[in-house]
Amino acid sequence: MSGDPKQILILGGGFAGVYTARYLEKLLRPGEASITLINRENYWVYQPMLPDIISGSIGLTNVVSPIRRLCPRTNLIMREVRDINLKDQIVTISPGFRPRHLQLKYDYLVIALGSITNFHGMPGMMENAMPFRTLADAMVLRNHLIHVLEEADVEGNPELRRQLLTFVVGGGGFSGVEVMAELNDFVRSVKKNYLRLRDEPHRCVIVQAGDRILPEMSEPLAVFAQRILRQRGIEIILNDRLKAAMSERAILQSGAEIFCKTLISTVPSALPPIVQNLDCPKERGKLLVNRGLELKDHEGKVWALGDCAAIKTMAGATVPPTAQHAIREATTAAINIAAAVRGGRRAKFEFEGLGTLGSVGHGAAVAQIFGLKLSGFHAWLLWRGIYLMKMPGLNRKVRIATDWLLHALFPPELAQTKVAFESGIRKQHFEPGDIIFQQGDLGDSVYVIEEGQCEALREHNGKQELLASLDRGAYFGEMALLSNRTRNATIRACTAMDVLIIPKIDFDKLRQSVPAFGNVFNELAKQRGVTEAPH
Amino acid sequence: MSGDPKQILILGGGFAGVYTARYLEKLLRPGEASITLINRENYWVYQPMLPDIISGSIGLTNVVSPIRRLCPRTNLIMREVRDINLKDQIVTISPGFRPRHLQLKYDYLVIALGSITNFHGMPGMMENAMPFRTLADAMVLRNHLIHVLEEADVEGNPELRRQLLTFVVGGGGFSGVEVMAELNDFVRSVKKNYLRLRDEPHRCVIVQAGDRILPEMSEPLAVFAQRILRQRGIEIILNDRLKAAMSERAILQSGAEIFCKTLISTVPSALPPIVQNLDCPKERGKLLVNRGLELKDHEGKVWALGDCAAIKTMAGATVPPTAQHAIREATTAAINIAAAVRGGRRAKFEFEGLGTLGSVGHGAAVAQIFGLKLSGFHAWLLWRGIYLMKMPGLNRKVRIATDWLLHALFPPELAQTKVAFESGIRKQHFEPGDIIFQQGDLGDSVYVIEEGQCEALREHNGKQELLASLDRGAYFGEMALLSNRTRNATIRACTAMDVLIIPKIDFDKLRQSVPAFGNVFNELAKQRGVTEAPH
Repeated sequence: MSGDPKQILILGGGFAGVYTARYLEKLLRPGEASITLINRENYWVYQPMLPDIISGSIGLTNVVSPIRRLCPRTNLIMREVRDINLKDQIVTISPGFRPRHLQLKYDYLVIALGSITNFHGMPGMMENAMPFRTLADAMVLRNHLIHVLEEADVEGNPELRRQLLTFVVGGGGFSGVEVMAELNDFVRSVKKNYLRLRDEPHRCVIVQAGDRILPEMSEPLAVFAQRILRQRGIEIILNDRLKAAMSERAILQSGAEIFCKTLISTVPSALPPIVQNLDCPKERGKLLVNRGLELKDHEGKVWALGDCAAIKTMAGATVPPTAQHAIREATTAAINIAAAVRGGRRAKFEFEGLGTLGSVGHGAAVAQIFGLKLSGFHAWLLWRGIYLMKMPGLNRKVRIATDWLLHALFPPELAQTKVAFESGIRKQHFEPGDIIFQQGDLGDSVYVIEEGQCEALREHNGKQELLASLDRGAYFGEMALLSNRTRNATIRACTAMDVLIIPKIDFDKLRQSVPAFGNVFNELAKQRGVTEAPH
Repeated sequence: MSGDPKQILILGGGFAGVYTARYLEKLLRPGEASITLINRENYWVYQPMLPDIISGSIGLTNVVSPIRRLCPRTNLIMREVRDINLKDQIVTISPGFRPRHLQLKYDYLVIALGSITNFHGMPGMMENAMPFRTLADAMVLRNHLIHVLEEADVEGNPELRRQLLTFVVGGGGFSGVEVMAELNDFVRSVKKNYLRLRDEPHRCVIVQAGDRILPEMSEPLAVFAQRILRQRGIEIILNDRLKAAMSERAILQSGAEIFCKTLISTVPSALPPIVQNLDCPKERGKLLVNRGLELKDHEGKVWALGDCAAIKTMAGATVPPTAQHAIREATTAAINIAAAVRGGRRAKFEFEGLGTLGSVGHGAAVAQIFGLKLSGFHAWLLWRGIYLMKMPGLNRKVRIATDWLLHALFPPELAQTKVAFESGIRKQHFEPGDIIFQQGDLGDSVYVIEEGQCEALREHNGKQELLASLDRGAYFGEMALLSNRTRNATIRACTAMDVLIIPKIDFDKLRQSVPAFGNVFNELAKQRGVTEAPH
C-alpha cells in the first residue's frame, strides 16, 4: 500500500450513495481513504416525503438535505457522470462553467445511479406527461397545478374549465397514490380562494394496470385504501393503463380518452444510459452483483447498489426499490469497501424488509409492519412518526415538525414559484383530428412536420375550405409570425404527427442571424401570399 | 347608473395595486363594483424582505403572499398586460394556454405597473448581470451562488477559483447594500461546508456612483454603514460605476476590471414598455397625475400610482419608490375611486414619509425614523420588528418569525432548488482580447457573429498560428459539433463582439428538420476540412 490514501468514488447521491458515504466516514479514518461522491444536485432527496411538496405541507428545501452536511468528510462534485471506464478505473464527469471534461481515477468504485423515467414507445408522453421522481419534478408539478387553477378561474368555456380541473395519475402503486392524494387535498383546499371555482367540481383519476391499487400491500389494505380514496372523490380506473398523451388529453390502452391538462405518470422506470452502456454482466439490464454487492468480474474493486443493481433477498426474491433496502445495501457495501482498504470482516446483504407504509391523504394511511396491518388515522400517525424519525439530522426533524404544525394551523401556500416561463425549441405529438392551431389564434411559433400529415383549413363565409395538405418536412405557421397577424387558417392533423415547434423568440433570432434559415420561410410566405410586415 | 356593478380594473400587483384592491374591498359593498387585478404572478412580493431569500433566513414562499388571500373579493387574472386603450376603455391581456388575447372593458382603471430593469446601453449587462427585483431574481441569484461555490470547490486553478469567489454588486443604495450584506453572510457561513474552500478568502465588492453609499440616508448613518460593511470584509468602491459586463469580468467606468462570475446590478430602472407607449401627458416618462392621483386628461376614470407615476410630496419633492409611499397612494386612490363610484368625500395625497430603515447584515442596521437616528443592533431589531408588523396577515407573521428563529438555531439551507439548466438560443457580448472558446474545449454550441470581428488561432508544436479572421455574419464552432470532437482552434475577439449562441441541442434539432439551415453548416465544415461524424 502506498502512502497516498486510496480513492473511493461513489456515483449517485440517492439513499444508496449517500448512506455508503456516511458509513464509510464512520468506518475509515481520514488518512485511510479519500471519499468522493458525484451527484447532479448538491442535495439528497428524502423520497418518502416528496409528495408533501405538492400541498406545501413541507417546505421546498425541507424534504432535501445538503449532501455536504450529511457527509462532511466526503468531497462532493455537483456534476453528471458521463463515462465509466472499468478497465482503466477512470470515471469521466461533465463540464462545469468551462467546457472541459473532468477525469477521476479510482481505486474503489460504488455505482448507485438509480433509475430514470423513460417514456419510450408511449407517443406524446415525453412532451405532455409529468414524471414524479425528483425535487424539480415536484416543483414543476406544484407550479403547474397553480397555473391550471389560475387559468380555470379565467376560462369562460365550461368544457375547457372542466378539462383544466381534471387531473390524471398513471400508476396506482405507492408513488401514484400518494401523489394523487396530496394533489386532491391541495386542489380541494385552495379552490375556495378562486372566486369562480369555489363551487366547481374537480376530477381526479388514478389509472392502474392491475385489478387493484397498491400491489406492494396485501389485498385487504389495498381495498381499504381504495375505499378511502373514493370517499375523498378520487376515481380509480383498474385494468387499464396510459398509452399516449396529447397536450389536451390522455389516451388509455382500452381506447378511453380523458380530457385533461394535467397528466402525471409514476410508472415507467429505466436504467440510466450510463448503466445501460456499461460493458459487464447484467440481469434484465441491471448490474449483476454477488452477496457482497460486488460487481461481477470486478470483485474487490467495484460495488453496485440501489435501483440500478440486480440484488436478491435471502429468499431469492428481487429486492424492491425502497429506502429501507438501499440503506442496508449501503451498510453492506461500506463494510466491504473498508475491508478492501484495510482488511477485516466482510458482510453479506441479507435484509428481508421491515414492511410497507403509505399515506392515502391527510389523516389516513395504510401500514403493514412486523406482521401487523394498520389502516386509518393511527397508521397515518405511525407513517409520519417513522419517516420523521428516519430523517437524518435534528435540523431537518425540527423544520419538518414545524412545517406540519404550521400546515395544520394555516391554509396551504398558494404562490407559484416559477423562475422562467417555458420556451425553447421543442417537439410535440398530435393524434389524427387534433387541432394544432385555430384560425384567429395569435401566431406564437413556427412548426416543422417531422412525421405525419396535416391539412390547412380556412373558414370563409361560414364554410370551411381545404387550402392545402402538408406532409413530412413541410413548414407551417410562418405566415402569422412574418406578418404579425393572427393565424389565417386552422391546421388539423390527418394522421399521428410529430412536429418541431420553434417559438417566435427563437425564430426571430435565427432569421436575423442565419439568412439561409430566414429565406426558407420568406420564400414560403411569398408563395403562400403574405408580404412581410415592416419591422 | 345601470344595474350592472361598475368594473374597476387594477393593473399591477405590487404594494400600490394590491393595497388599492384591499382598501376598495373595505370601502365598497360587493354589489357596488366588481374589482379585477391583473398581475403576472399570483403573489405579492414583500420587497423589504426579498434579500432574506439569499441566505434562506426566510423561506422562499414566506416573503410573498398570495394575492387571492390578501384581496379575497378581487378577481385575480395571472397574465400580462399587453395594451391599454384609454379612449375605448379597454385593456388587452396576454394569452393563457390558448393563444387568444383577452380584452377587458373598464369603468375605472388603476395603473400601478411599477418599474422594470433596463440595461440598455450597457454592453453585456443583459447577458451577464443579474437584476434583483423579483422573487424569480432572488431564486436565480441564490441558485447561482450555490453553483459558483460548488464549482469553486472543484476548480484546481487558483486564479479561476478566486474569480468564482468574487461577488460584485453595482449600486450602493439600500437595495444593493442589503443584497451584498446578505450574500456576504451567506457565503461566509456556508463556505465551511466546502472541504476545499474553508480557508479560501472570498471577495465582495460594492460599486457606487456617488461619494458615499446609502444616498437615501444622512451622512453619519451612511458612514456608519460603510464602516460596518468594511469590518465585515466588503470592499466599497466609490465614485465609479458599472459600464459593461462579460461572462468572466465586470468593467467599470474608470477602466478598472474585476474578474468575477457573479455580478448583480440593482441600479438601472425604467418604465415598463406598456407605460412608455401610453399616449398621455408624462413627466420624465412617468405618468402625470394630480393630487388625487388621477391621470391628466382622464380624471375620474384613470388613476396612476406607484413607481410608474410622477407624484410629488407636499413640499414639491419627487416621491421615492418605497412601500410606505405606495401604501398611502393606494389609500388616496381607493377613496377617490369609491367617491367616483357612489359619491362622497375625495382625498389628496399628502404623505411626507416616516423615515428610512435598512439592514447592513445580520445583527446590524441603520434607521432614521421620526427624527431619530439609530444604528447597530438596536436598529436591526427595530428593522425586523417594524417589517414583521407591517407584513399583512397572522399566517405570514408567524411563519417569518419561525423562520428567523430556526435560522438562528441551525445553519442556513444549502440545497440548490434549480428546476432546469439554462439553455436556449441566446446572445453574448465579448470585449477585444476575450477568448470565446479554447482549442481542446468540448463543442457545446455554434456561434454567429452579429457584430464585430474575431480570429481563429491554432496551437501547433508549441506555436500559435492564425488560421482565419472572421467577420460580421460569419459562423464558427460548427466543426466540433459536426465531428463530435473537441475544439480544434481557439477563437479570440479582435473588437467588441456580439454573438448569437446556438446550443448543440437546438442546433441538432434544427439541422435535422430545416435542411437549409443544416446545409449552411455542412458546407462550411466541408470548406474548413471536416467530415461529418457518423450518427
